[in-house]
Amino acid sequence: MSDHRHYDLVIVGAGSGNTIVDERFEDFRVAVIDKGPFGGTCLNRGCIPSKMYVLPADTATAARRGEALGVPAEVGPADWARIRDRVVGRVDEQAEEGRRGREEADHIDVYRGTARFTGPLELAVDVDGEVTRVTADQLVLASGTRPVVPDIPGLEEAGYETSDTVMRLDALPRRLGVVGGGYVGSELAHVFASYGSQVVQVEAGEHLLGDQDVDVARHFTAAADERWDVRLGTEVTEVSGGAGEPTTLHLDDGSTVEVDVLLLAIGRRPNSDLLDLAHGGVDVDDAGRIVVDEHQRASAAGVWSLGDASSDVPLKHVANQDARVVQHNVLRALTDGAGDTAGWKVSDHHAVPQAVFTHPQVARVGLTEAEAREEHGDDVVVGRHDVADIAYGWALAGELDGDGEATGFVKLVALRSTGRLVGAHLVAPVASVLVQPLVMAMAHDLPVAGLARSMYWIHPALTEVVENALVSLESALADPDDAA
Amino acid sequence: MSDHRHYDLVIVGAGSGNTIVDERFEDFRVAVIDKGPFGGTCLNRGCIPSKMYVLPADTATAARRGEALGVPAEVGPADWARIRDRVVGRVDEQAEEGRRGREEADHIDVYRGTARFTGPLELAVDVDGEVTRVTADQLVLASGTRPVVPDIPGLEEAGYETSDTVMRLDALPRRLGVVGGGYVGSELAHVFASYGSQVVQVEAGEHLLGDQDVDVARHFTAAADERWDVRLGTEVTEVSGGAGEPTTLHLDDGSTVEVDVLLLAIGRRPNSDLLDLAHGGVDVDDAGRIVVDEHQRASAAGVWSLGDASSDVPLKHVANQDARVVQHNVLRALTDGAGDTAGWKVSDHHAVPQAVFTHPQVARVGLTEAEAREEHGDDVVVGRHDVADIAYGWALAGELDGDGEATGFVKLVALRSTGRLVGAHLVAPVASVLVQPLVMAMAHDLPVAGLARSMYWIHPALTEVVENALVSLESALADPDDAA
Repeated sequence: MSDHRHYDLVIVGAGSGNTIVDERFEDFRVAVIDKGPFGGTCLNRGCIPSKMYVLPADTATAARRGEALGVPAEVGPADWARIRDRVVGRVDEQAEEGRRGREEADHIDVYRGTARFTGPLELAVDVDGEVTRVTADQLVLASGTRPVVPDIPGLEEAGYETSDTVMRLDALPRRLGVVGGGYVGSELAHVFASYGSQVVQVEAGEHLLGDQDVDVARHFTAAADERWDVRLGTEVTEVSGGAGEPTTLHLDDGSTVEVDVLLLAIGRRPNSDLLDLAHGGVDVDDAGRIVVDEHQRASAAGVWSLGDASSDVPLKHVANQDARVVQHNVLRALTDGAGDTAGWKVSDHHAVPQAVFTHPQVARVGLTEAEAREEHGDDVVVGRHDVADIAYGWALAGELDGDGEATGFVKLVALRSTGRLVGAHLVAPVASVLVQPLVMAMAHDLPVAGLARSMYWIHPALTEVVENALVSLESALADPDDAA
Repeated sequence: MSDHRHYDLVIVGAGSGNTIVDERFEDFRVAVIDKGPFGGTCLNRGCIPSKMYVLPADTATAARRGEALGVPAEVGPADWARIRDRVVGRVDEQAEEGRRGREEADHIDVYRGTARFTGPLELAVDVDGEVTRVTADQLVLASGTRPVVPDIPGLEEAGYETSDTVMRLDALPRRLGVVGGGYVGSELAHVFASYGSQVVQVEAGEHLLGDQDVDVARHFTAAADERWDVRLGTEVTEVSGGAGEPTTLHLDDGSTVEVDVLLLAIGRRPNSDLLDLAHGGVDVDDAGRIVVDEHQRASAAGVWSLGDASSDVPLKHVANQDARVVQHNVLRALTDGAGDTAGWKVSDHHAVPQAVFTHPQVARVGLTEAEAREEHGDDVVVGRHDVADIAYGWALAGELDGDGEATGFVKLVALRSTGRLVGAHLVAPVASVLVQPLVMAMAHDLPVAGLARSMYWIHPALTEVVENALVSLESALADPDDAA
């Protein structure tokens, strides 16, 4: 090793990890290590660019149903280059600004490379082949995840995209094959289908969005199937062609599908395997996630982890929460030493909502009905209300019966013994916004009884579907005959 | 009088008043009196049909900005007849079903006519000239409001529409004049402008939506002015033409405006003047609203009122609340007598939200900043966050800078002394949904300190604009130098 440098704080990962460093760290020597752009997955390849692609997709989808609503609109081909350049321009600028801000700070060193443990609190940092020995008093692992690439014959030769690369395509594919029915695959299928690509989505399970409550997964799958070609219970056994020519997917039902671009979206895996964690005494679980305690401390003294590297809920709002906890606790450790944890922040992973920005939109918080029944058996009570049965829903319903929004719903899961919500599942317009009062009810431990009537809900706004689902749940909770 | 009938309960008004009667009233003789269709203003002429007109309008408006977002859409002329027939068909069917259900019930008499007091708890009910003397043990006045028609020379001769009639026009007007800048006028201006009418909106005050927080009113006015012709600080002094020919509005700035249809939307007045209330011993306030106590009892024994007839907040969700209070208390009075009010419901008019379904959408709850300063002076603290400064807003911003949604915001008003929200003002996409967690915070008396961090907010959803406005407000509350 050519060199040795010691820091008060070393952060591996320039995504959520990098957000820790604010003005309170000015008197500490800090290193940030990442071979990729600043901002991590969320800014560069994840939630932010994907939502910037979703808005035009939602706009085109909404315009297409104008005809049924009496306001006919002719939707032309999407201007892919314009959309892409706008998205990429914005996120690249942000990433670059983030890096520059750190590089210009006297107390921060940025290493644009990779890190491996060589001992406790000791890393070998490789920047273009030049290796530096870096040691730290406190070390934060915010090393994230990367897309899983399955071992399918012919895949490497044919070539493929992942969510890391598909947002920078040269041109809109005429035919897109999406392998994977989770939220990444489904959001991107919605985007490309809305832009005018012919999309085929292949999913091994029974439904798309298989992690959602089964009623939501079924509803979404049916709605998606109206818009693009969904192949369920099917796997890709071989890939042929590609490399500039069309790619053929060979499915295990014997059929084949020809596409111009193949997008793999079957999941993400932690980058922990790239870090030689064992040399640092840092434990991972069976899935490769770094094991942390309630203070976000890893198993080795002085080491912390946050975000997708350690969480089984790989969402940016969770990473942000983790980062605030680590920020607070690392500052205490740097200032007062690590012995006394009084006054440290504790992570809260309760009532974490998530949304899928498709059409229809999907959102959830807490347990699915099946998860709740597994855990709580007959104590489970369910309430539900349909979008079509609120006044605002009348504006959607009737003319749009094949549309997954117009036929959406809110489903709530509670426990009779506690009278509290344990889960909420929405498939509805702006489900990602409608879910918030339910998140709030769970986070503040509010009883279901009286909740709907404890406040006003604007008539006739979409929120009435949540209000009425709560009324339905409250009735079910109050009815001893409501069979669980 | 030709006849006398006595009832346990008489209800004047088949809107919210009619919702009182459920299965618990089966053993009572009930009369419902209304000359109009069942469902009242909300169902027939108000919130419900207006929102059914707004959805296609929103769809067309969204489609028109597709071009800027890279998904060009050519929006054709709206199919007015189709939209109207769909809306009218749906609400008329509902109204008819409502009436039929009551007429078929053995214990309910429906009078399709008008009522006037002839004494305490005594009415003369006129159905097509046939007058019945009706007396009641309990009498509910849910008589609503009607549009104000100003005394402008030439108006009656020229002819005009109000919100009561404009939704049933034969054809989409090529040119629409809207007199009034409140929420009714602004929603309908949005609808007709989106459908392709040339709209001129005339408002005497400085801004449209003059009842909103001034920042919101200013923002909305500027956005509306990008979309149609807004004339502020101006009144109509005379109307000429009309009666089949174009109508000319003469404005007090000397200019004239020619339109094909003239819509008056300058406010609504209570129908109390039509009821000879003095004969019934029922008091009204200076605005003609029936005076009620916390139990919704009017000044005369056995008389109740609810909804727009008695409330200074003429919104359906308030009328629904009032109706639940009256329903409960009237049942008690019928069953146990009116002497003992223990166990009666009390009206809650705290934290009443409202929304304006325009583009951009507007929502509020509680006090404006000016109202708060008037009442609380330097104790007032303000927080704010812009839509463009959240990740989801990036998807809107830049290409859509003239668009009132992309440049919208959330403004929060709190008191330093209590640390509680007293008002929230939103001009943003789905503001009517975004406002709900703020309504909840006020209704549940939650402190601002810690509220944003007490729960998760999905990243990157629109709710982050509320989260960040709360963070901004919390900082301002914590900063003693934040000049109020």
